[in-house]
Formats: sequence, structure tokens, C-alpha cells
Amino acid sequence: MNIKLFFFGKKNEITSQEKELFKRINFRVSAEFCVLPQAGIKGNAEEITRKESDTFLKKIKDTDTLIAFDQHGKEYNSQEFSAQVTTLLESKKELVFVIGGAYGLDKNILERADLVVCFGKMVWTRNLFRTMVCEQLYRAFEIANNSHFHK
Amino acid sequence: MNIKLFFFGKKNEITSQEKELFKRINFRVSAEFCVLPQAGIKGNAEEITRKESDTFLKKIKDTDTLIAFDQHGKEYNSQEFSAQVTTLLESKKELVFVIGGAYGLDKNILERADLVVCFGKMVWTRNLFRTMVCEQLYRAFEIANNSHFHK
Repeated sequence: MNIKLFFFGKKNEITSQEKELFKRINFRVSAEFCVLPQAGIKGNAEEITRKESDTFLKKIKDTDTLIAFDQHGKEYNSQEFSAQVTTLLESKKELVFVIGGAYGLDKNILERADLVVCFGKMVWTRNLFRTMVCEQLYRAFEIANNSHFHK
Repeated sequence: MNIKLFFFGKKNEITSQEKELFKRINFRVSAEFCVLPQAGIKGNAEEITRKESDTFLKKIKDTDTLIAFDQHGKEYNSQEFSAQVTTLLESKKELVFVIGGAYGLDKNILERADLVVCFGKMVWTRNLFRTMVCEQLYRAFEIANNSHFHK
């Protein structure tokens, strides 16, 4: 069982908090960050997200299960998200998560995604959002393993 | 115009990211963190939250506008939250925000609150949630001032 968390940005944006959460997730499954370059932070949003999606989609396999984060995705509570993640892992395929860059994710990625998830109605910076994803992934595995972390 | 963000924990839990966000909020309004001791992290949840609420409610004035964060609160998007915060600030009263400790907030606080807000369905650790509140507060003022931060 492997999970990969792709994001657009720089490796040094990964905080010590995120590294610690992934270290703990690694007690349950093999989990790694995958960094892709942002295609830009100023300019035509559509062109930027399209370029980013071209780069990303080449990096994943047709057999990977893809979970994308997008504001228009389905909202789960932590238990439901945990159940989704653990069910998808049972398929034995690689589980790939992807977080958008400055302008979110291109529709090509959203169409390829097996699941599109949102964390409520608020807009978040991509860096804080990555920390939030790390915490919910950690929480997902703790819930699935009945630890005392989630109350 | 003053805003205060109360939380139960320790002063050194405030991250550099949160300090930076509050520094920037201070260009718009006077904003400060207010730290209250946690009444416990293990034990009877009801007793702990009751003790914490007793400590907190003594610290605020009857005239303060209180905004509490709770899972059963009302969910806004970032624009709506910005509109709420700026409207409440127009009353010229002090705006007090409060985040729960390990077991959330006591019902005495929720009953005293003028507004109860949630950030979606997920459960968050109290420390990450504080960062999330700081970012949404910063975003709220940037939206209200038509800056380029929010897109």
C-alpha cells in the first residue's frame, strides 16, 4: 500500500509539521511527498493550470487511483474521509492525492480523478491547505486503526 | 477597532506563521492573541470544558461581541465570513474570537456567543485550527479591503 501526495511548489515549502505527520503515516502505509514545479504564479490562470496538469498527468500511471482536492468536490467528515481512503487502499492500487497550485487544478485533472474532495467552503492558501491534507490523512489512518488520536 | 483571539494552550504554541498573519492583520485592525491555560488534556471532558469556560467568561466584557468556533456552528465561505466580521466590527465593540481546547468549547460559551462558526465537517487539532482561523481572519480583512491576496 502506497500513497503519494503531489503538490505544485517547492520541496522546501514542506513544513516540519507536515514531515512529522508523514513520518507517522509511514507507520501505517508507505507515504511520500511528490513535488512538481508551479507553471507560474502570475499570468493566465487557464494556461498555468493546463501546463501544470500536463506535467502532473505524465507522472502518474493509468492504474493509479487519483484523489484531487477542489472547492467543488465532495465534502466528507473525518470518519467518512477515513473510510473512503481505506476502502480505496483495499484495491491494492497506488493512491495518488493532488493539491492545486496558485490557481487550483485544471479540469483535465478533475476529469481524470476517481474522487474529488473539498474541505468545506473556505478558500485556503495552497501551503496551509497542504498541511490540512497531511493532518486529515494522518487522522484517516488513526481512525481506521482505532487509535486514541481522533476524539 | 480591536480583535482578540482567545485559545486554550500555551503562548509558545503560536507559530511564526500565525504571528506573521497577525502582524499583517494589524495593518487593518488592532489584533492580539490571548492565551488561557488548558484545564486538562485527560479526564472528564465536561468538567474540563466547564472549567475553561469559567476562566474565559471572566476575561471578557458584557459588551464584547463573541464569535466562537464549533463544529455545529454556521459554515460561511471566505467572502461571507469577511462580510460578517467587518459588519460586526462596525458596531465599534471589541470582537472576541475563541477556539476550544482539547475537548472543544463548553455550552456556556456557545450560549454566550453572538455567532458560532464552523470551517466545514472535518475535525482538526486545536493547533492547526488556530492557524486556519488566523489565515481566514487575515483573508477576511484582505477581502474587505479589495487587496489581491484573495482570488
